[in-house]
Amino acid sequence: MKQPIVTLTTDFGTRDNYAAVMKAVMLNINRDVTVIDITHEIGRHDIMEASLVLANSYHYFPNWTIHVVVVDPTVGSGRRMLLASINSHLFVAPDNGVLSGVYQDPEDINVHQIEAEHYFLRPLSSTFHGRDILAPVAGWLTKGVEVESFGDKIDDYVDLKLPVPEVNEDEGMVEGQIIHIDSFGNLVTNITRARFDEMLEASENHQFELAVGDHVIKELKHFYAECDKQSPALLFGSTSQLEVSVNEASAKEVLGFDKGQKLTLRFL
Amino acid sequence: MKQPIVTLTTDFGTRDNYAAVMKAVMLNINRDVTVIDITHEIGRHDIMEASLVLANSYHYFPNWTIHVVVVDPTVGSGRRMLLASINSHLFVAPDNGVLSGVYQDPEDINVHQIEAEHYFLRPLSSTFHGRDILAPVAGWLTKGVEVESFGDKIDDYVDLKLPVPEVNEDEGMVEGQIIHIDSFGNLVTNITRARFDEMLEASENHQFELAVGDHVIKELKHFYAECDKQSPALLFGSTSQLEVSVNEASAKEVLGFDKGQKLTLRFL
Amino acid sequence: MKQPIVTLTTDFGTRDNYAAVMKAVMLNINRDVTVIDITHEIGRHDIMEASLVLANSYHYFPNWTIHVVVVDPTVGSGRRMLLASINSHLFVAPDNGVLSGVYQDPEDINVHQIEAEHYFLRPLSSTFHGRDILAPVAGWLTKGVEVESFGDKIDDYVDLKLPVPEVNEDEGMVEGQIIHIDSFGNLVTNITRARFDEMLEASENHQFELAVGDHVIKELKHFYAECDKQSPALLFGSTSQLEVSVNEASAKEVLGFDKGQKLTLRFL
Repeated sequence: MKQPIVTLTTDFGTRDNYAAVMKAVMLNINRDVTVIDITHEIGRHDIMEASLVLANSYHYFPNWTIHVVVVDPTVGSGRRMLLASINSHLFVAPDNGVLSGVYQDPEDINVHQIEAEHYFLRPLSSTFHGRDILAPVAGWLTKGVEVESFGDKIDDYVDLKLPVPEVNEDEGMVEGQIIHIDSFGNLVTNITRARFDEMLEASENHQFELAVGDHVIKELKHFYAECDKQSPALLFGSTSQLEVSVNEASAKEVLGFDKGQKLTLRFL
Repeated sequence: MKQPIVTLTTDFGTRDNYAAVMKAVMLNINRDVTVIDITHEIGRHDIMEASLVLANSYHYFPNWTIHVVVVDPTVGSGRRMLLASINSHLFVAPDNGVLSGVYQDPEDINVHQIEAEHYFLRPLSSTFHGRDILAPVAGWLTKGVEVESFGDKIDDYVDLKLPVPEVNEDEGMVEGQIIHIDSFGNLVTNITRARFDEMLEASENHQFELAVGDHVIKELKHFYAECDKQSPALLFGSTSQLEVSVNEASAKEVLGFDKGQKLTLRFL
Repeated sequence: MKQPIVTLTTDFGTRDNYAAVMKAVMLNINRDVTVIDITHEIGRHDIMEASLVLANSYHYFPNWTIHVVVVDPTVGSGRRMLLASINSHLFVAPDNGVLSGVYQDPEDINVHQIEAEHYFLRPLSSTFHGRDILAPVAGWLTKGVEVESFGDKIDDYVDLKLPVPEVNEDEGMVEGQIIHIDSFGNLVTNITRARFDEMLEASENHQFELAVGDHVIKELKHFYAECDKQSPALLFGSTSQLEVSVNEASAKEVLGFDKGQKLTLRFL
């Protein structure tokens, strides 16, 4: 594998040396590796957030990039470590659901348990398997070790159900929720542009009303600078998901909404 | 171009996957690219700050480094995207003034509008042109695509006037201001060492008095550890600009000054 | 030297362009260099913290990695700059004690003063020697310039005494302290697993009692998820040092302890 790429998605924060030590372990195995930090600021132990961020990121990378995820609240316990080949990318992560976003609609999927201890760092700690298991497995993958060499194929991996919108096509209604808040404070929902366009097309007057908290929004904007100041606006963000946004401000702060906030979309 | 270098200067913050996704887009075009983060913590939508940071950074990089700037509050609106060749470096940025610091005193300058849509990512979002336009343009530049291929040369780009000091040479006076505050809390002014030295030389007693707020400073220090604790001291910082500093503390916090604070320098 | 690796450990924070400018200076000398950020969030001017983080990080990297440390509160004063070859790694740092953790138990050690000014950036600032001295020295090292070329060997470098536990083997007692707090809030002590295991083995009942503040802990956990919520638990962290931890919370915040907090371990 020439000039291999590895990504890191963790909840380490940026202050400690944990990410650097994982890079060191990989460089010790293969000096040619390029490591890209997706983020180290996943909310502490927030498996669902890691899952969403990874699902929205991995496909921009070249095929056969190796994506390492370390959001691992039960490190040291019996939870397994996984090596998955999905949609022509490789994933190395604990079996706690952090890959759930990637498990959705896979074109091809192959999940292996990591069992081949001779690839692990010694002594194996019980508190930092990112360094002792995941980093060396990623390193050896870049050296051409086959996926099958690390352990048996399994089917019973943990697949968390990501919140999906409730759709009532007859009544032209969708009940979704806020599933992600970016650091600009934009509120990202689980309603996709494809769903929205399809139901708007099918509706009688090709109009809609979105209700969230005390607010009703009837218009779709195209970009942030078009949005109103101090009151919520709707647009499709960079992941083609419906977003609630406030111009030049944090929608989260102005509106006071958090993840899990429900919203109801009615097509008229 | 062998082992090309691309820099990123954005207001994304470090929590989201935005910078990583831009790197992914570039690596998809050219695996040999080295990406250096200048900063992702430009103040949100602070075009002037981005302009100053970039002007103080780019010339340390090898010639023909490609500098990508994404501080783009009006993304999706009609603002143009630029590809500029200035002082033997390349710049890819929105036409909103973020290159103003680089436009000052250029030895050579060549600004093109980016119009060649076949280089853009598809579908083109209206909210993330850093990913969909700037990253692929930078990627293709590293593959040797000529600047001229991306669009026509223009002259009417946005050039914000950076705050320059008011100089009265007859009276030996300079009125400057604080234009940048680093994260140590040092207050960086727009008065350069060259200006200071020249006017001190021309003055009668080769002495000076700087007034800022209620403070008067008459002495120049050479390094931070020489400065007083709790009271402001003057020195030339790493960019050869006059700085107000407090030893082992944040001058911003101790003195309460902010960007835009005026200061008067009188040579005696 | 093929594909050389340089690490950076600084107190710059992540907002300013300081780390990027150091990378630029190195890339100007050698485009092949790979720079890994260990951290830029050492506490401001906290030489002791930098020393501990570096000592816990460097050995994971390949031999002859070049480790650059910029925690330099007296930059511009008479303090010397060092180039040290220790345990088959290279270190470039101010002579203020930041290498003290690496000076402990070296297999081989060779410390040189950096004097060869023709390698420095010109003009030499008095406020940013990381950029003007350390970065170019690291750059030229990657190009094969010999350690001896930069200055004479010295023996009188600053070696700060890191806090070591007081051990009374006859009474089976160890008095240690908290020396580091990671960003999860885990409280890392200066008591090693080797010391603990040895004294537990030598004790009559192979039991222990640890007293810290108002808390007494008598049990050792193996991993974080086993620890109690809201009350302190003990385990060995990823550096094999005894840690006080609280499950799913910051031990620092729950217990209110800080660096320097004493703890007494009694083997029974």
